[in-house]
Amino acid sequence: MVITELFVDGEPAGSVPASDRGLLYGHGLFETMRLWRGELPLLDLHLARLESGARALSIACDLRALKLQLNCLLPKLPAEGLLKLVLTAGDGLRGYRYDSASSESKARCLIQYFALDHGSSEVRLKLCEYRLPDNPRLAGIKHLNRLDQVMAAAELPPKSDGLLLDQTGNVIEALSSNLFILYQGQWLTPSLQKSGVAGVMRQLLMDRVMPAVDLTPLCQDIELGMLQGAEEIFICNAVRGISSVTEIRGLAQTLFSTAGTPSSESTQTALIQAELGKQYPCFGE
Amino acid sequence: MVITELFVDGEPAGSVPASDRGLLYGHGLFETMRLWRGELPLLDLHLARLESGARALSIACDLRALKLQLNCLLPKLPAEGLLKLVLTAGDGLRGYRYDSASSESKARCLIQYFALDHGSSEVRLKLCEYRLPDNPRLAGIKHLNRLDQVMAAAELPPKSDGLLLDQTGNVIEALSSNLFILYQGQWLTPSLQKSGVAGVMRQLLMDRVMPAVDLTPLCQDIELGMLQGAEEIFICNAVRGISSVTEIRGLAQTLFSTAGTPSSESTQTALIQAELGKQYPCFGE
Repeated sequence: MVITELFVDGEPAGSVPASDRGLLYGHGLFETMRLWRGELPLLDLHLARLESGARALSIACDLRALKLQLNCLLPKLPAEGLLKLVLTAGDGLRGYRYDSASSESKARCLIQYFALDHGSSEVRLKLCEYRLPDNPRLAGIKHLNRLDQVMAAAELPPKSDGLLLDQTGNVIEALSSNLFILYQGQWLTPSLQKSGVAGVMRQLLMDRVMPAVDLTPLCQDIELGMLQGAEEIFICNAVRGISSVTEIRGLAQTLFSTAGTPSSESTQTALIQAELGKQYPCFGE
Repeated sequence: MVITELFVDGEPAGSVPASDRGLLYGHGLFETMRLWRGELPLLDLHLARLESGARALSIACDLRALKLQLNCLLPKLPAEGLLKLVLTAGDGLRGYRYDSASSESKARCLIQYFALDHGSSEVRLKLCEYRLPDNPRLAGIKHLNRLDQVMAAAELPPKSDGLLLDQTGNVIEALSSNLFILYQGQWLTPSLQKSGVAGVMRQLLMDRVMPAVDLTPLCQDIELGMLQGAEEIFICNAVRGISSVTEIRGLAQTLFSTAGTPSSESTQTALIQAELGKQYPCFGE
């Protein structure tokens, strides 16, 4: 099977005009979606987030047209892997101003297929010195301004994931995953009011998966020091599902470790993972 | 004369690969340079800033090659206008990690010509509700993550420029210009330690122009309230030079106005402007 890996507005293509506002300003959004048995199990959640981000960035987003495009593309692609969808504000003249009502302001959609690299279900995190900026207006949005992640990734050894704090030192997220901690018997996940990306898997776990096993996670500020008292920690995203965190290394000391604790099968993380796999079999394999 | 407006790595081109990290993450930098009588009078300052930004973002930047490219292009372009140079981290695989030492990590250079739209030498600013995030590591760098400016520009009426504050409410800059205020007889310009872009014209004024007329501007925090006590305010950038600010409108009130003050010819701004034009005639016309 010949795979044309990249599609721009539904057509096979390898490039975008240099006038694209995604390139010039990062004026755009992206979604990274798990492809499983020729389908996108979390598509509705991804499109809902995309629509909400597009509204915040004044990008005209035609969800029906996007769905049609995806439906046409899926049969041409392998059945397993992931799709990255990038929606930019389209072409612009020079300057930051953007008239989303203008006929020239047509959003551009890039869809690219990638094979899935099967990682481990356990992960070690390293605390990044680079800290996320506070930006209440853009917090939560999966936009194309990703220098924060680029700067943080530059600190990490190969195969290691990073733990990112905000300017005041609160825990926010991993490099491309959200984080949950079990602390004094209560599941917590960082409030993303000022920074971070509100992941689709995070939403799914809070709304559908954890309640199904009688767990009610709370969104709140999580200070770095709380990690040392955590009973369990996991990270999650829409490609890999849930990964248990076995260790978090700080700048001078280990902040969290599961070494010496009982087998991972009896943890609450395993229970949540099992429920996720029951509701969404692609994350149970 | 036929003008090919856009050059990618020195060749006429209209597009960039969709794998460009400038598009995917905003992993890149830009410079907007005044073109005057077929030359770029501030080229050395632009290249110095580009090199320093490239170091911060781990982008390999070959200044000699860039200069060669520019020298080859200039004869093909009109003598007057502006050049926008975009330097991206080049192509990347999926993921934030970037190996600048890898042979695949070759920076990509886009150069685009634009005609100059002659604006007024006076400008009115509107205070933007959108606030710049605090980000000490990226502050000052003219990188491609420009959603802040896109969000702020969306608040502005046509032809109006915006005044941007940081998260704590200090004055930082205009939409694409730096700002100087004369306050209690002393010229001040905002410290850009936590946000903002450190403009080439700002540097030039501080280092060479203002000292030549015995003025020594100070970089410091400028609270919004100080604008009401300001004697003069101007903004500046490397395309337009200096523009006097005649009014700043806040959300509920006028924060600054020159209405009723003496003729603009007798101001210190006019003196600085005259000295700039003497040293760099392109900004004296």
